[in-house]
Amino acid sequence: MNLTDKLNRRYASKMMNSLPVDDQKVENILEAIRLAPTSLGLQPFTVFVVKNQDMKEEIFRTAASGQPQIPTCSHLLVFAANRSITTEMLDEYFELINNTRNLPKEKVVTYRQLMDGLLNRSNEANFTWAAHQVYIALGFGLVAAATEGVDSVPIEGFNPKALDDLLQLEEKNLGSVCLMAIGNRDEEKDYNAKLPKVRKSKEKLFTEIN
Amino acid sequence: MNLTDKLNRRYASKMMNSLPVDDQKVENILEAIRLAPTSLGLQPFTVFVVKNQDMKEEIFRTAASGQPQIPTCSHLLVFAANRSITTEMLDEYFELINNTRNLPKEKVVTYRQLMDGLLNRSNEANFTWAAHQVYIALGFGLVAAATEGVDSVPIEGFNPKALDDLLQLEEKNLGSVCLMAIGNRDEEKDYNAKLPKVRKSKEKLFTEIN
Repeated sequence: MNLTDKLNRRYASKMMNSLPVDDQKVENILEAIRLAPTSLGLQPFTVFVVKNQDMKEEIFRTAASGQPQIPTCSHLLVFAANRSITTEMLDEYFELINNTRNLPKEKVVTYRQLMDGLLNRSNEANFTWAAHQVYIALGFGLVAAATEGVDSVPIEGFNPKALDDLLQLEEKNLGSVCLMAIGNRDEEKDYNAKLPKVRKSKEKLFTEIN
Repeated sequence: MNLTDKLNRRYASKMMNSLPVDDQKVENILEAIRLAPTSLGLQPFTVFVVKNQDMKEEIFRTAASGQPQIPTCSHLLVFAANRSITTEMLDEYFELINNTRNLPKEKVVTYRQLMDGLLNRSNEANFTWAAHQVYIALGFGLVAAATEGVDSVPIEGFNPKALDDLLQLEEKNLGSVCLMAIGNRDEEKDYNAKLPKVRKSKEKLFTEIN
């Protein structure tokens, strides 16, 4: 199967069968998320990988009661973006750059000046920006899951405040942005499993400027 | 090469070599973008596929002068989200659903009621939400390009107002959100081409709840 076939096979599973997904497949999905590009390379987010069944059920009950995939999935990913960008985060990032790349000092100084600009933006603007980077990584995770032949579904329909409280995210300078359930579809019980995909035609979605 | 290898090969190319990318590969990348999931399935965006060299150069000059990938790429994608959600958009979407899926009438009615809720949100909230969907699709496009062995780079560093004016997006109820350049890296001239990738470690990026 090529990528198009695999993406056609994927769909928003509303009900999974509670069976575990192979650890190596989950690792490969997480690795794609880790390799996703982010603006300025900062990766301003954390992903919680919830395998614990009690925690999945608590998230379902307290923050996402309309999402039956959550208690029936294998792994629930909670993508949480940084609420503010701090000097400490930038210091840590530059330490990582210095440990990875042998850059001329003047290049590092210019780059740091550029990144220090983030400290002058409002926390709201930086959170919005960080959330955008999260969604790129979410996209990477969803494609990787399809590539592995694993079912997955992005979830926005939850109460971010309740989830932040449950995982104590505010204290960690984080705010929940979106979820991704990884698991195995329940073909019998999932109404969506047999429905054809609804997408705009190429002609509607794309405008060519040739 | 597996997906991890392909994602490790990809990087943010800052300079491309102006050679065209094979049409079939571009088609496959666009198809991945078309198949990307969106909240409620609405796909509230349009993607401009700019192959025209004069237009690439005009975008570079007027809206993104710090981005030398733009005039040297093969295809520039401009992702533009809907500025507001309208009844007409929802009507069109439900026509598409009705043409694709043979759903019981009561299911369609419930779904339409849910979607009509979008009309009560502010345009600002809907644009933010639409932009999130754009970034999922951007992620799909970037992974698909890596899968095809084609270079690509996401671009946020541009002037959205200038680009909206150039492409007359506001009149089309659209606002530019991000760009994606597709092309071939210029290994000689691109400083980034030989640098090792900088990413947070697994331990830093992920928190397991087992």
